[in-house]
Amino acid sequence: MAARLVPVSDPADPRLADYVRLRDVNLRKSLEAEHGLFIAEGEKVIRRAAGTGHPVRSFLTARRWVEPLADLLDAADAPVYVADDATVEAVAGFQVHRGALASMERLPLPPVEDVVAGARRILVLEDLVDHANVGSIFRCAAALGIDAVVLSPRCADPLYRRAIKVSMGAVFAVPYARMSGWRDGLGALRSAAGFTLLALTPDQSAVPLDKAPLGERVALMLGAEGDGLSSRWLAEADEPVCIPMSGAAMANGVDSLNVVAASAIACHALMRS
Amino acid sequence: MAARLVPVSDPADPRLADYVRLRDVNLRKSLEAEHGLFIAEGEKVIRRAAGTGHPVRSFLTARRWVEPLADLLDAADAPVYVADDATVEAVAGFQVHRGALASMERLPLPPVEDVVAGARRILVLEDLVDHANVGSIFRCAAALGIDAVVLSPRCADPLYRRAIKVSMGAVFAVPYARMSGWRDGLGALRSAAGFTLLALTPDQSAVPLDKAPLGERVALMLGAEGDGLSSRWLAEADEPVCIPMSGAAMANGVDSLNVVAASAIACHALMRS
Repeated sequence: MAARLVPVSDPADPRLADYVRLRDVNLRKSLEAEHGLFIAEGEKVIRRAAGTGHPVRSFLTARRWVEPLADLLDAADAPVYVADDATVEAVAGFQVHRGALASMERLPLPPVEDVVAGARRILVLEDLVDHANVGSIFRCAAALGIDAVVLSPRCADPLYRRAIKVSMGAVFAVPYARMSGWRDGLGALRSAAGFTLLALTPDQSAVPLDKAPLGERVALMLGAEGDGLSSRWLAEADEPVCIPMSGAAMANGVDSLNVVAASAIACHALMRS
Repeated sequence: MAARLVPVSDPADPRLADYVRLRDVNLRKSLEAEHGLFIAEGEKVIRRAAGTGHPVRSFLTARRWVEPLADLLDAADAPVYVADDATVEAVAGFQVHRGALASMERLPLPPVEDVVAGARRILVLEDLVDHANVGSIFRCAAALGIDAVVLSPRCADPLYRRAIKVSMGAVFAVPYARMSGWRDGLGALRSAAGFTLLALTPDQSAVPLDKAPLGERVALMLGAEGDGLSSRWLAEADEPVCIPMSGAAMANGVDSLNVVAASAIACHALMRS
């Protein structure tokens, strides 16, 4: 199939509506939910998203990228909007350096029970706000052999453009699902799927992560930036676990890791068995 | 001492020259080097920087922050430029949310040998480019008990505003120094100070970090984003070490961690003895 190249030059062209103001988080949240789409940026990410079965709605790219991306553009049954850099920037709201943008269709997320079936090591993310952090955590999870990720109902969207980008496409490699309810989500993981719930906390009186008993199935819970896990989720956990901090650091007031660093250490620790 | 409040309203006021275009990395590099200054943003960071002996050249803040920061402003022998939000934004190039900016004097960096004297666990950073990554690594280093950080001659500056901010002020808690020469810097660490040099590499044939022999004094070397350690530094190391990746991830092409995640795991591993 040959790519359907469509020259465009008007930033207000309604055919480019999928790509407007990509850095406007609130606008994008509602626009992407309404139309069931997400934006993939750059060749590698687009290939990975397409490879996991996400249909392409359209591409938006500059003329000079059409040739290098020919096989990708040809393979998709979707219009390729070709514009100059100024037009792309006027639509997207920033300079796109990675060659191409693709608007792609979201697939229905599987139920939590399907995603965790057969999984031995999972992460459960409660209410993370920052998309880059969610992306980084997926990258760690993928590299360090986490089998699945479960998101709280309000956790930031792994298919937001920046999350995908920071994950290096790992959001397409690690199966994930979103709980339908915050109150009973953890209970279902434990009772139906038999996971031991470990809650990562900065509290240094908790069991050090490296010494925590790892059962057959372990769910490691990570809380929001700043606030950490909610008290309800902490209370529901089987065991609070901590990453030991240096005594000097505690005295100095430098007594915490950001959630990405903490999750990297935690994923690594979960690999030990 | 009472704060010297100086109302300003012209973004081109030469007294505000220290604060211009804070997001223009190239401009800031040369301006800050020329004047021997750095910019601290927000109360916590300013207090930490002042607490480690960095003299304040001036403050720039909005009127509403003068009262909450009174003790800090009073304690410094420096003018407090008070401007409305629009003026601050016009000078700095972005909206400053954290209350106050301070222009502070850099102190001469100590020689490498002074910084590593008495240290058992150090990081050596080769040519990192991203200031946020450098800041994150300092935060990990501080929290996880790393004694000192040594920078290659070209490694990004820990006192760049964004590095300080991301580090949560940890750049003032962990002693650091910069090598004068890239070619003989490592040799000096080994021969003069007796450090075992471990080179962190994605190469999965290297010794897993958790199994690496940790001698009395260990220097863990981290390379640049993307490229990793130079072949020269890799060859000079006593032992290449790796973080084991999941087999499935390798097959999937999701086979690397970003340098912050890797450094978090590495710092944690160095704590084990």
